[in-house]
Amino acid sequence: MSRIAYVNGRYVPQSDASISIEDRGYQFGDGIYEVIHIHDGRFVDTELHLARLARSLREIAIPAPMDNAALLVVLREVVRRNRVHEGIVYMQITRGVARRDHAFPLGIKPSLVITARHGNPFPRDIAAWTATAITLPDIRWGRCDIKTVNLLPNCLAKQKAREAGAYEAILIDASGMITEGSSTTVWAVDANGVLRTRHLDDHILPGCTRAALGGLLRDNDIAFEERGLSELEFRAAREVFLTSATSFVKPIVSVDGVAVADGKPGPVTTRLFALFARHADGAGHNAASGGPVLRPRGESDQTRP
Amino acid sequence: MSRIAYVNGRYVPQSDASISIEDRGYQFGDGIYEVIHIHDGRFVDTELHLARLARSLREIAIPAPMDNAALLVVLREVVRRNRVHEGIVYMQITRGVARRDHAFPLGIKPSLVITARHGNPFPRDIAAWTATAITLPDIRWGRCDIKTVNLLPNCLAKQKAREAGAYEAILIDASGMITEGSSTTVWAVDANGVLRTRHLDDHILPGCTRAALGGLLRDNDIAFEERGLSELEFRAAREVFLTSATSFVKPIVSVDGVAVADGKPGPVTTRLFALFARHADGAGHNAASGGPVLRPRGESDQTRP
Repeated sequence: MSRIAYVNGRYVPQSDASISIEDRGYQFGDGIYEVIHIHDGRFVDTELHLARLARSLREIAIPAPMDNAALLVVLREVVRRNRVHEGIVYMQITRGVARRDHAFPLGIKPSLVITARHGNPFPRDIAAWTATAITLPDIRWGRCDIKTVNLLPNCLAKQKAREAGAYEAILIDASGMITEGSSTTVWAVDANGVLRTRHLDDHILPGCTRAALGGLLRDNDIAFEERGLSELEFRAAREVFLTSATSFVKPIVSVDGVAVADGKPGPVTTRLFALFARHADGAGHNAASGGPVLRPRGESDQTRP
Repeated sequence: MSRIAYVNGRYVPQSDASISIEDRGYQFGDGIYEVIHIHDGRFVDTELHLARLARSLREIAIPAPMDNAALLVVLREVVRRNRVHEGIVYMQITRGVARRDHAFPLGIKPSLVITARHGNPFPRDIAAWTATAITLPDIRWGRCDIKTVNLLPNCLAKQKAREAGAYEAILIDASGMITEGSSTTVWAVDANGVLRTRHLDDHILPGCTRAALGGLLRDNDIAFEERGLSELEFRAAREVFLTSATSFVKPIVSVDGVAVADGKPGPVTTRLFALFARHADGAGHNAASGGPVLRPRGESDQTRP
């Protein structure tokens, strides 16, 4: 079965799906995106992703191409046509097509592209889900809180990780503080046993999986601090793990070739891995295809089982 | 006459010209570009632009889609088909089309897109070529020396300039030093009468017009220093001007609403405007269309009149 993409109002074979060479996404990276995990036929953390999408658009002054209810209909239709039960749905919104000029053109419509693809089922065995990381200087721009497609620094960092045989590049800013991974949020259990992840500001993406996990921690009375780690604190950590819509809770067992503690997933990571797996399995998600789950505007989009 | 674009080996009507939604230029801004000014049917500073193109590609490990001789043939053909005698030619090279993944995919071919468009003739009257600027914090990434299409910060800065009724946003880094404009090189005659522009490093683009003007300054025994200006020095400058392939030598007569000196182009700017106009008019450029100007590889591509 060939994959189907949604491109500006049309469902087209993905192999033919194209955008204009004067789309500002292509010429300037003038756009934003989101990736939602699909597990057991349902979107995970939909509302968090759609809220972040709306925020990203606002921050760079791109009008939303449609409201969230309509967007959910299209997302589900792309998932349905591609028969994705486990995988991801990807959406990208750019400012649109215009004669090349840095400043925003007037009177153009934003471009919306949506694709879906199959992925492996949610991992059940944490021992098979471990990974390694390297560290690199964070040379990205000053607004990494916006999920833009200006991703070249992230690509270069991820490529360096791959060349080093590692899963992720963890970034360290000029003041020696851990920011985040090239496409993940970084968490650690520090030498004092405190679970920590960096506070939100302009220098990291407000991770949806980070937010979902934070909610689970609060619901389960598990203490954690939103406070950045210095490089020294990070290298002395008892446990390190990453979160993202596709990494879930990912134990990092070595950093720059040095084992984290005994080189195995620690107890906190193991507990949170299980907790997040239940969250991904559980109630509170939108059906990724079919079902009368849309609510009138202004009400929650979440389904209640 | 409809415009013609070159897209990966084909000359197509620009209104139909498209690239895949999975082109990494679109999904990651994983690509680079150049703009060459066409004046009186000739490319201005071709060798500088092609050398910078090659450097940009090397820095992010994208293989050149063709050698410079072949690229010049295509550039000329695009210019010829669009009958551009005064204007610009734009070329963009991205890593190519692949399943979305931050790290570099293996075995793909880079994408090459070339367009040309008409522009106004080279300005003859400096009084009609003056402009204004605002200043903004420089929040771009740490490798602005690479001419990538990750241009969202530049677009946001240019938009702020436009909203303020100004031509350009001049950027100031966290240490209070002038870096460059959102799409231009910044020059100033400081309070001591010294002509200065920032030294090259990772934080500014090595401007081709900057380099060409530097050569003219040396040829004409006009002293200048490659040394960055602090914000204080900049605001006390006697003259400010910008350079780029499309701004040429552009006098800035006010910054943040405050007149530079008496608010008219100064004597140094006026002299350099004339000097650069002669350079653009003059010998040493490649014919933008037609003519047996290619040299065997390894020799200079420049025409000798």
